[in-house]
Amino acid sequence: MTYQPSFQDVAHLGHVEVFTPKLDESVQFFREIVGLHESGRVGNSVYLRAWGDYALHTLQLTASPTSGVGHVAFRVKSPPVLTSMVGYMKANGVQGEWRDAEFGHGRAFRFASPDGHPLEIYYETERFIPQGNQVPGFKNLPQRYSPHGIAPRRLDHVNLLAQDIKSCREFFRDMLGLRVTEQIVFEGGQEMGAWLAATFKSYDIAFTKDHSKAHGRFHHLTYAMDSREDVLHAADILAENGTFIETGPHKHTIGQTFFLYFYEPGGNRFEIGAGGYLIFDPDWRPIVWSKEERMKGQAWGLQTVRTFHTYGTPPVEE
Amino acid sequence: MTYQPSFQDVAHLGHVEVFTPKLDESVQFFREIVGLHESGRVGNSVYLRAWGDYALHTLQLTASPTSGVGHVAFRVKSPPVLTSMVGYMKANGVQGEWRDAEFGHGRAFRFASPDGHPLEIYYETERFIPQGNQVPGFKNLPQRYSPHGIAPRRLDHVNLLAQDIKSCREFFRDMLGLRVTEQIVFEGGQEMGAWLAATFKSYDIAFTKDHSKAHGRFHHLTYAMDSREDVLHAADILAENGTFIETGPHKHTIGQTFFLYFYEPGGNRFEIGAGGYLIFDPDWRPIVWSKEERMKGQAWGLQTVRTFHTYGTPPVEE
Amino acid sequence: MTYQPSFQDVAHLGHVEVFTPKLDESVQFFREIVGLHESGRVGNSVYLRAWGDYALHTLQLTASPTSGVGHVAFRVKSPPVLTSMVGYMKANGVQGEWRDAEFGHGRAFRFASPDGHPLEIYYETERFIPQGNQVPGFKNLPQRYSPHGIAPRRLDHVNLLAQDIKSCREFFRDMLGLRVTEQIVFEGGQEMGAWLAATFKSYDIAFTKDHSKAHGRFHHLTYAMDSREDVLHAADILAENGTFIETGPHKHTIGQTFFLYFYEPGGNRFEIGAGGYLIFDPDWRPIVWSKEERMKGQAWGLQTVRTFHTYGTPPVEE
Amino acid sequence: MTYQPSFQDVAHLGHVEVFTPKLDESVQFFREIVGLHESGRVGNSVYLRAWGDYALHTLQLTASPTSGVGHVAFRVKSPPVLTSMVGYMKANGVQGEWRDAEFGHGRAFRFASPDGHPLEIYYETERFIPQGNQVPGFKNLPQRYSPHGIAPRRLDHVNLLAQDIKSCREFFRDMLGLRVTEQIVFEGGQEMGAWLAATFKSYDIAFTKDHSKAHGRFHHLTYAMDSREDVLHAADILAENGTFIETGPHKHTIGQTFFLYFYEPGGNRFEIGAGGYLIFDPDWRPIVWSKEERMKGQAWGLQTVRTFHTYGTPPVEE
Repeated sequence: MTYQPSFQDVAHLGHVEVFTPKLDESVQFFREIVGLHESGRVGNSVYLRAWGDYALHTLQLTASPTSGVGHVAFRVKSPPVLTSMVGYMKANGVQGEWRDAEFGHGRAFRFASPDGHPLEIYYETERFIPQGNQVPGFKNLPQRYSPHGIAPRRLDHVNLLAQDIKSCREFFRDMLGLRVTEQIVFEGGQEMGAWLAATFKSYDIAFTKDHSKAHGRFHHLTYAMDSREDVLHAADILAENGTFIETGPHKHTIGQTFFLYFYEPGGNRFEIGAGGYLIFDPDWRPIVWSKEERMKGQAWGLQTVRTFHTYGTPPVEE
Repeated sequence: MTYQPSFQDVAHLGHVEVFTPKLDESVQFFREIVGLHESGRVGNSVYLRAWGDYALHTLQLTASPTSGVGHVAFRVKSPPVLTSMVGYMKANGVQGEWRDAEFGHGRAFRFASPDGHPLEIYYETERFIPQGNQVPGFKNLPQRYSPHGIAPRRLDHVNLLAQDIKSCREFFRDMLGLRVTEQIVFEGGQEMGAWLAATFKSYDIAFTKDHSKAHGRFHHLTYAMDSREDVLHAADILAENGTFIETGPHKHTIGQTFFLYFYEPGGNRFEIGAGGYLIFDPDWRPIVWSKEERMKGQAWGLQTVRTFHTYGTPPVEE
Repeated sequence: MTYQPSFQDVAHLGHVEVFTPKLDESVQFFREIVGLHESGRVGNSVYLRAWGDYALHTLQLTASPTSGVGHVAFRVKSPPVLTSMVGYMKANGVQGEWRDAEFGHGRAFRFASPDGHPLEIYYETERFIPQGNQVPGFKNLPQRYSPHGIAPRRLDHVNLLAQDIKSCREFFRDMLGLRVTEQIVFEGGQEMGAWLAATFKSYDIAFTKDHSKAHGRFHHLTYAMDSREDVLHAADILAENGTFIETGPHKHTIGQTFFLYFYEPGGNRFEIGAGGYLIFDPDWRPIVWSKEERMKGQAWGLQTVRTFHTYGTPPVEE
Repeated sequence: MTYQPSFQDVAHLGHVEVFTPKLDESVQFFREIVGLHESGRVGNSVYLRAWGDYALHTLQLTASPTSGVGHVAFRVKSPPVLTSMVGYMKANGVQGEWRDAEFGHGRAFRFASPDGHPLEIYYETERFIPQGNQVPGFKNLPQRYSPHGIAPRRLDHVNLLAQDIKSCREFFRDMLGLRVTEQIVFEGGQEMGAWLAATFKSYDIAFTKDHSKAHGRFHHLTYAMDSREDVLHAADILAENGTFIETGPHKHTIGQTFFLYFYEPGGNRFEIGAGGYLIFDPDWRPIVWSKEERMKGQAWGLQTVRTFHTYGTPPVEE
């Protein structure tokens, strides 16, 4: 029986490499203000994770002339799935190459999204091993909870800008087996956004229409808190720190997640979020939103700020 | 020794009469969606209270051709203070008249704010006596907590629009002994807003500049929840009910309160709020905000919506 | 290739039938105090659901001389899986029978746990179709959020008492493909508890040692709130209503869930819970707790109340 | 007109000196785990405050052979009140002496509670002046919110053990003008506990019956969080840090406050709390609880742990 990617073959979003022209400031920001933990450094990259992430890292900050996304990596559920999925992609004309093991994970297959975002899938993962006062009192947690700054619990999802949402949505659905959970489709079928899940969460990756002519741009990366109150505390911390809050805290209509967007020192947009629904129905059908429905703004009526549609990294001339 | 009003002579905001051209719809809204409890009806008025209010009512809805405020009543701390305060006001040229006891309270002195808002002070109060399944399990609470709808805990504060903020601020400070907690003062000393407290809360009444030429207008009345999470639930309830949410939930810079503004069926603006700081320092000095500081928007950067400055009740031609 | 059950073949816990000797009182309790919604009545059964449940019902209350569990039903992810899983069970000596479609779902295979609890698996499900003022403003939610009472969001998990934990754990792992997430194993390998998941939650079903000699007993059924603050509100509501709270609110060490246990009028234990970790790691290994570790009590030190180990339904002579 | 102390003449609880036989460990604990800020050191004392405290310090930790309370200080509302109150106490046979200004405040009158606890009243206070990255973005807050550890907002109340509750209650009511908010009175009028307020909070100081024969003992000091969720986070932090949690988080019936009790390294009991009702009614009458009512345990049924009645500092032979 020939292999076909199915839901859950991709286990979860693994880690994201983000470029920053101000590496030191970005690292300082994520350590001191966001409260992530540094796992190590290799070359121009600094690796970080949230206290609840089981992997050695979920964020890779890499010094670069520009901001933007270096690559987005997903962990698949087993070695055979890794081999089969790569074979399936190649058989379907997806170009890519195997890369040797690097910091935090084993060999990975590097390919690109239809919009040109560098992507990777891998299986072998190095787990975080707590030492000293990082050892948790609870064996079912990866690290002791000892908050400093925002202290999000874990990596949640990534949002990428793209020119052709439909092709990106179909690529992740057909090649990686993700579940399409929600969509924005304008009159005439023009797709403006797509939300997909590898897990039971309302989404693990989203694609939104890039209003510029650029390709492969980054919209935001999100870390999750346990409660909406935690997100409100995060807003207090960011405001007091003088960090630019683009919009929020407020509730998304799509995904029903509670959001807070801000720009890190390197210029990339990040989100601190919480909540959203879990999908237990195996027959979930994508929720499709029209332009009229989107005009109503977010869940409680907040209009989406213009920069949310125009600002991505690296920035481009409008 | 001649009497002079001092902080605490006015114990707290007692109740507010709000006019509505749609009495039945307004009553239905406050009972079913907001979750207030009806205490009684007299003539064109319906009296309501929150589950945590000790008084028989804190909101009086009165059928009227227009929206707006009927009167704002404050309870003073003792019978002698009531007499002395009235005497002091009269000696200082404040016109007014005694009114007989009515629903929920004893005789009251009716006078007007410098902007013409009808005001009252009274002492004798009828307490809510729980019956049947309203009897609380906790003797230190006025009513059993059995939520339906938003279910705010208690009346919090009132905000009135005025042409001359300075005179209103000084009137409440000098005639009623309230504490000025925060102010907005533009260049040249033009006062745009004043927040005053009769209690340890960051404010119990506020005056903000009316950008129309009208007098005696109402900005909003606020009921308080115990937590910010409760206010987020309120937003969910209002959004699902199709109630127009004007702005929020978000955090005020002034008072540090968490806010959510909406319009009830009669057109009046109401707020569901939580938090804010308590003032323990007996020497608190008013915090004064400049135009530049206000331009920064609310605590987390949300710009104040235009209608917040232009919409009051009754509405006027702009 | 012969079929073998794998993780996710069982999509989720579908519904649980609970026996009550006081049907009217139980129904009134779940409608008025817990805030569940009635979906219908057939014979001696009343069907209910939480506002966030997509299925027509998640709780079936059935009039009976005693309390206890009628049956526990799981929804599988597709028709072929239903057929294959039944075939696999039969091939492995599991006795059972097909039952015709009934309220809320299509044909189901009825079998028993190693301890004798009636179980079912089914695929065809009737979805809740909101009518009138139940229609949500958000298309991605099954019903309008309009809270009354506790108003939990959804069914979460079931806990069953058993004599032989090991056989129950292996049965659900091997026959139904569930993931073993945590265990309690005393010296000599005696298993005292097992937590298993069909989803990404820390568990969907748990088995704990029955200290009596009885078989097939029910420990509790849990409905989930979105936040710990919501669970605290639930405690306020139950306390004010005079409902017996057995223990909590507090945090479980196992699963890290926030719990609140109480007895409904029929005598069955129910839980209102929130939180807990999500499992993204496809290689999750069961966390095993020793007797010494369990002696430390719950997460914040609360000792487990004795009745938690001794009380189940139907009750038995000790 | 002769002076008589009235409600509000004592503005608020100012600071408490706590003895510790392990000064370094206690200081480290309050700085790193509780997240208080050090204001300075003089002799054997280290002075600390919460981020929301306006005064230079609210906690004074003093090296001592034993644990216990050094003194409890209240700030009065004005210089004349300080003089008058001292005069009134002396006229009523209260012995005491003036002490020179010391760290954080001006001259103070030192006297003793009927049970022998050292007390002080003072007016002149040194305010905390934020420097560098402690400067808040919000002028109405004393310090930038940048959480580390539990990070409570402010000092809340103190609880002292005493042999004669009635005399302590009457002393604070008659000599200091505090409001008696709640009481525990057993049959025959034996007073077991008294809660008093200088502010609108449900209490600022409490006296509970010392079951030993000792005098002048300390029960606990409480710092307040903004929400119950914050207290749950505090429990997570203490549990992970291996701090002994005596009881909680749970809700007090008395005061309706949400509590969490633990022992600091020096052996003293501290509390992290939130919530409770505010008293706006100037005619509030003390709520009196009987033995039977207290036997019901705390708000949600948790039985009060035995040590709560027996453990105080310094510890004594039972």
